[in-house]
Amino acid sequence: MSGAAKTCAGRFFEDYRLGEVITHAVPRTLSGGERALYHALYPARHALHASDEFARSCGLAAAPFDDLVVFHTVFGKSVPDISLNAVANLGYAEGRFLRPVYPGDTLVSRSEVIGLKQNSNGQSGVVWVRTSGVDQRGAEVLSFVRWVMVRKRDPDAAAPAPTIPDLAGSVAAEGLVVPDGLDMTSYNTTLAGEPHRWCDYDVGEVIDHVDGVTIEEAEHMLATRLWQNTARVHFDATARPDGRRLIYGGHVISLARALSFNGLANVQIIAAINAGSHANPCFAGDTVRAWSEVLDKAETAAPGVGALRLRLVATTGTPSGQLRGENGKYLPGILLDLDYWALVPL
Amino acid sequence: MSGAAKTCAGRFFEDYRLGEVITHAVPRTLSGGERALYHALYPARHALHASDEFARSCGLAAAPFDDLVVFHTVFGKSVPDISLNAVANLGYAEGRFLRPVYPGDTLVSRSEVIGLKQNSNGQSGVVWVRTSGVDQRGAEVLSFVRWVMVRKRDPDAAAPAPTIPDLAGSVAAEGLVVPDGLDMTSYNTTLAGEPHRWCDYDVGEVIDHVDGVTIEEAEHMLATRLWQNTARVHFDATARPDGRRLIYGGHVISLARALSFNGLANVQIIAAINAGSHANPCFAGDTVRAWSEVLDKAETAAPGVGALRLRLVATTGTPSGQLRGENGKYLPGILLDLDYWALVPL
Amino acid sequence: MSGAAKTCAGRFFEDYRLGEVITHAVPRTLSGGERALYHALYPARHALHASDEFARSCGLAAAPFDDLVVFHTVFGKSVPDISLNAVANLGYAEGRFLRPVYPGDTLVSRSEVIGLKQNSNGQSGVVWVRTSGVDQRGAEVLSFVRWVMVRKRDPDAAAPAPTIPDLAGSVAAEGLVVPDGLDMTSYNTTLAGEPHRWCDYDVGEVIDHVDGVTIEEAEHMLATRLWQNTARVHFDATARPDGRRLIYGGHVISLARALSFNGLANVQIIAAINAGSHANPCFAGDTVRAWSEVLDKAETAAPGVGALRLRLVATTGTPSGQLRGENGKYLPGILLDLDYWALVPL
Repeated sequence: MSGAAKTCAGRFFEDYRLGEVITHAVPRTLSGGERALYHALYPARHALHASDEFARSCGLAAAPFDDLVVFHTVFGKSVPDISLNAVANLGYAEGRFLRPVYPGDTLVSRSEVIGLKQNSNGQSGVVWVRTSGVDQRGAEVLSFVRWVMVRKRDPDAAAPAPTIPDLAGSVAAEGLVVPDGLDMTSYNTTLAGEPHRWCDYDVGEVIDHVDGVTIEEAEHMLATRLWQNTARVHFDATARPDGRRLIYGGHVISLARALSFNGLANVQIIAAINAGSHANPCFAGDTVRAWSEVLDKAETAAPGVGALRLRLVATTGTPSGQLRGENGKYLPGILLDLDYWALVPL
Repeated sequence: MSGAAKTCAGRFFEDYRLGEVITHAVPRTLSGGERALYHALYPARHALHASDEFARSCGLAAAPFDDLVVFHTVFGKSVPDISLNAVANLGYAEGRFLRPVYPGDTLVSRSEVIGLKQNSNGQSGVVWVRTSGVDQRGAEVLSFVRWVMVRKRDPDAAAPAPTIPDLAGSVAAEGLVVPDGLDMTSYNTTLAGEPHRWCDYDVGEVIDHVDGVTIEEAEHMLATRLWQNTARVHFDATARPDGRRLIYGGHVISLARALSFNGLANVQIIAAINAGSHANPCFAGDTVRAWSEVLDKAETAAPGVGALRLRLVATTGTPSGQLRGENGKYLPGILLDLDYWALVPL
Repeated sequence: MSGAAKTCAGRFFEDYRLGEVITHAVPRTLSGGERALYHALYPARHALHASDEFARSCGLAAAPFDDLVVFHTVFGKSVPDISLNAVANLGYAEGRFLRPVYPGDTLVSRSEVIGLKQNSNGQSGVVWVRTSGVDQRGAEVLSFVRWVMVRKRDPDAAAPAPTIPDLAGSVAAEGLVVPDGLDMTSYNTTLAGEPHRWCDYDVGEVIDHVDGVTIEEAEHMLATRLWQNTARVHFDATARPDGRRLIYGGHVISLARALSFNGLANVQIIAAINAGSHANPCFAGDTVRAWSEVLDKAETAAPGVGALRLRLVATTGTPSGQLRGENGKYLPGILLDLDYWALVPL
């Protein structure tokens, strides 16, 4: 007997049903080990995530994981069920971080299918899912929508009734969740690394984060495996005709976010992901740079805590502020265009 | 005075005495850091080793380390005393995992010389050792036999009386140790990632694990150092005439075991290593794939727990099921042929 | 509005004032994760730092971090304020480890400017700082002096009155701090890996540490990021005209110290750094080797604890004992010349 039936080839477009909830495999307990690796893999320096003492001075019990550790862990689990046969990762929306995650917490991930639309060519379709991360107490720690283009196994399979979810263009400032107890009234900018507070940022302001990091194959594979993301194109040099391994888009997000410390050192907590595009593929050997634009500002109900809406752009050298060409398409040097809300001291 | 006498050049064949017990150096306390690194270095996804909650649902106090973490830690310590001057790692037998190891445990390793046989050329000989890992409570956590061919320092040194130990062809199913408290009657296959239970596997079944991982120099060196394995050929590009670093055979074992998740996601615990051959050397740039064959099945006394005897084969692309050529030798693409017992839910 | 003013371009020579104290950003909590990574990045095997049980047998509460983990953490934080615009790292002096650091401790780093001297060319100057690491209880864990050559932003800026601090050629043996409770009277040389004690080492003795490690780009970048050291030349392949990334000097220190296990396995604790030179730059692809020379010996007041003053030299293959050419300059193959005091069992 052959064991072919035992292995998972991933789902195809016709395997999804509107409204179905998929519990993703492999619950994961995170520890100080994951935090140390995050610091080794990315030039991450935000004090709230590096120091228990600093986090306590902001009203938290200890230093929570960088919010992107939570994002990658929850996202990675969804890959075998959602994007193993994805042709493209099309977008993100309505991402909200709902609760800090600490060493010792265990995360499970699940996704609800909230939209389906077969493409006109009949070869593939778009699947929208709302993916949630849930901790060992059953509390939701993260929720986000993403949509991917997935191949059909059988082009003759019947197309589902098209359902395109109604998604917010961005998370409303009033909808941002501030961690319980967060209080930035005694925030120490010297220890955090920069003096700039919420009031120092203006809408429209563009910040060039100066530094660049050249990526090695070993680094992005270590990172992607750490999140138990198993998509073949990241690991197997024989998977693509050109012999190149595609770098997990989330690796570029974390790299850009870490680089943004230089200019946004006080942007401590990611509260929401409004939208995001992996504009061009990234490969080992690329030197990644980043710039940010302040899109909006809002106050929160928490003491000393303001919110900034930011555009974070990762590039391979495209000058700051440049994003799209005359044809409206992303310039070739743009890797990532991420729109997010973050919490900063007033 | 020269310090040459201070450094360790490793033992040679004539330095071993039958019956002697060698306590290996550097006791090691393992933590969540080693677990996180294991997940970064290998595509390891077995839920029992990733999630404290999942492990508790199986009757354990928390997630124990992957059994191969224990194997590598115990093995690595034996290298300076057993295999620094080894010409070849010839085989494994009677490997038994006796007790789960948890973060915070400290392991010591020791080996008893149980066999010696000089080769007919008088230049080298075979040394058999039974190596044990012992925790901070003095409890044995792992025991295995391996035999290596070791050079003689002085070809004229007298040959010992040849003693070849009588080794079991495989660990008897009745001899498998099930961790205290292990109970898989409430085992959750959804969280584990696959529906296949003990009853779904047939003797003779071959499973192609589909995925491949291309290895980088940095990765195998990080892994091998993590286990404090110091064999020069793994780290020093000037050690071999061809300038290539040989990859530690255990790295290939862990890679193949992790790849086998796809088809063997419920094969949670390695209970015994019956035999193993590192059939061909592995180098950076190789894309490693794996397939398994079900060799035997057995029941255990623990609730809901069955045992599968499996052959795990790592290759650089040789099709599943192919192992040896017409001459009886391993095919050039075969890296590893490992025979082990594992515990799975009934 | 442009965000250029938001990013940190580092200090220039004219920005330092004698006597000023700079608190460096990003306090850091260290865990078992950093310890595991240290073992993966370097062939580190000193038992006191690897095993809680071994450390307890020496009178400590648990295994403290390798002293170089503390050095790198404290040093890394000083980089953005001290050496981002440094042309050269000129030297170290009066380095003293004052208290062991354990998983869970949080370190902050600060530097006092203790010397300033503009160079005669008016383009740069030398800055001397005394940098301290302080834990969450306010206790100093490490103090060292380093001096760097820093560019001027404005060549016309006024030169400060030259002040060259009076630095000790080496830390006096009586000034060495032995960790509270350290007692090596029951020290186990078998578990530590070598029989050589304090009395077995002679002043003038030279030890070739035998092994070599070939460095990969991914490894030194992971290490340097782990210490939150952000100097551009280590990460950005476009930063230098030759496209090569310069390896952080501290990476070479840790590599050489770990290699020195073979011959100095009982040199468990670094008590002081007397002096150090990064004699030549190190690049990926280099195979690093090490040798040591015993410079001095001293007793301490702690039971069973002696001190050795050692020269640790990292090379790319220069034979042991060779350091400088006829012109008095370091030979091209010398990477590091470090003078330190360490604690060993009597």
